[in-house]
Amino acid sequence: MAEHLKLEQFPARIEIPILWGDMDAFRHVNNTRFFRYMESARVKYIELLDLFGLDKDAVSWPILAEASCKFIAPLAYPDSVIVGCRTSAIRSPEELEQEYLLVSSASNLTVAVGWARIAAYDFSSLRKSRFPEKVLAAINELEGGDM
Amino acid sequence: MAEHLKLEQFPARIEIPILWGDMDAFRHVNNTRFFRYMESARVKYIELLDLFGLDKDAVSWPILAEASCKFIAPLAYPDSVIVGCRTSAIRSPEELEQEYLLVSSASNLTVAVGWARIAAYDFSSLRKSRFPEKVLAAINELEGGDM
Amino acid sequence: MAEHLKLEQFPARIEIPILWGDMDAFRHVNNTRFFRYMESARVKYIELLDLFGLDKDAVSWPILAEASCKFIAPLAYPDSVIVGCRTSAIRSPEELEQEYLLVSSASNLTVAVGWARIAAYDFSSLRKSRFPEKVLAAINELEGGDM
Amino acid sequence: MAEHLKLEQFPARIEIPILWGDMDAFRHVNNTRFFRYMESARVKYIELLDLFGLDKDAVSWPILAEASCKFIAPLAYPDSVIVGCRTSAIRSPEELEQEYLLVSSASNLTVAVGWARIAAYDFSSLRKSRFPEKVLAAINELEGGDM
Repeated sequence: MAEHLKLEQFPARIEIPILWGDMDAFRHVNNTRFFRYMESARVKYIELLDLFGLDKDAVSWPILAEASCKFIAPLAYPDSVIVGCRTSAIRSPEELEQEYLLVSSASNLTVAVGWARIAAYDFSSLRKSRFPEKVLAAINELEGGDM
Repeated sequence: MAEHLKLEQFPARIEIPILWGDMDAFRHVNNTRFFRYMESARVKYIELLDLFGLDKDAVSWPILAEASCKFIAPLAYPDSVIVGCRTSAIRSPEELEQEYLLVSSASNLTVAVGWARIAAYDFSSLRKSRFPEKVLAAINELEGGDM
Repeated sequence: MAEHLKLEQFPARIEIPILWGDMDAFRHVNNTRFFRYMESARVKYIELLDLFGLDKDAVSWPILAEASCKFIAPLAYPDSVIVGCRTSAIRSPEELEQEYLLVSSASNLTVAVGWARIAAYDFSSLRKSRFPEKVLAAINELEGGDM
Repeated sequence: MAEHLKLEQFPARIEIPILWGDMDAFRHVNNTRFFRYMESARVKYIELLDLFGLDKDAVSWPILAEASCKFIAPLAYPDSVIVGCRTSAIRSPEELEQEYLLVSSASNLTVAVGWARIAAYDFSSLRKSRFPEKVLAAINELEGGDM
């Protein structure tokens, strides 16, 4: 996972303030919120691809097939978390992998790293699909041509 | 992960009704809720260990070190999800691994499987710790002596 | 509000288990969850009206215009909450009012009462609308003809 | 409620980005999130009182006794919400009232107004209590001496 990467290596980056209510009875941010933070960075990444320029009906939508998070240090209110999202691999036209880095603004330390597998899904036929060439090209460009 | 197991193989099992508000803008249960469902089964598992009979101050508390989920089929309201939790490995006195199975009550199909790494943590010294022998023995007994 | 009513007076009733993660840093169920519980009872109420038998395109959808909750006693895990929902007034064909009663299963005590104003909304024209006669008749029947 | 006030009249103000996952199946921010936004502004308000300078054990903690929200316009991702919190009345040393204003950053329009009744609570004796004089004085000062 993304433990040895720096935020600068993630094309999509967002900052989200920790809310008091994000904490659970242990007075730390609850684990489910980390997945919400990663989801938010993933949505930002998709926006950067500017898919909306494509024919909307033709685009298969990315769905979350698998997600994981390694919790390195606790987060607590007050603070904000900076979340980076990058595509780490395109396994096939049907499926890609992403990495996430979560950094505390207060401590500047990595609090978690995440990983996700994302599949193309056609909501009209309700079945797995392929990412259009244009989408894969946009990802490749966003990642600096390394895909 | 737990894809080929049956609910009967999980010592802790809970049923949670899907709430309409658990769904996101895609009209499926949001991925973060799956982690809430697994957390709830994990808490149930801990209750089954009856740790509260132990000296409360001496017990290191289990914290979530890593969590993952493989999403197999969408969940939607109205339905309920049955979540099973089992300990699949005790790697060391500091750390154990769990598996989760999530089954839709409506379809009787597996909608997700999960995995977690759980570490012992001493909240008084704020550092990693060891699970007491009594806890590991209780886990072993709960799992049918297979640990 | 509904403090002096009994659950039996609410046509829609649901039971929702409290999850450990519903609690906040004060180790009580967080206030926002009470609104989720009431939303869930409201959805159940709408299902009882069997609106889906109506022409779907013609039905104005009910939206939440105002909501309030009076917190009477704390809720905590483990417990479950029984939530009742009733329509207390039809102010006009555009708007109705509901009351909610939240009872702890463990204590059998009322932990909160709520109130909501619900407006008809036409998602096609994006403006306030009227509840169809059939809907108001179904509500009246569900409430025992008291509307 | 606070509909005719301006953000400048609220001593505590925070800006919270809308996350994609804050939306529900209607593709608008779910009502429960509005209560989370108001809670976050309330916590900010308490911080402004600098209560932590008081003897911690002597301070009765403010708890939410009643909360309401009037939903004026829908919120959706992407946007951020600016939330103002003010104390509108000190009914007695046991209880005060607050108002909230929620403004969309994108439209600069008021999307909701809220109201809350907050009671002093002594967590050691588990009963209602009184706000210390110093706290009421701090609130009065924060509100420009109008209380």
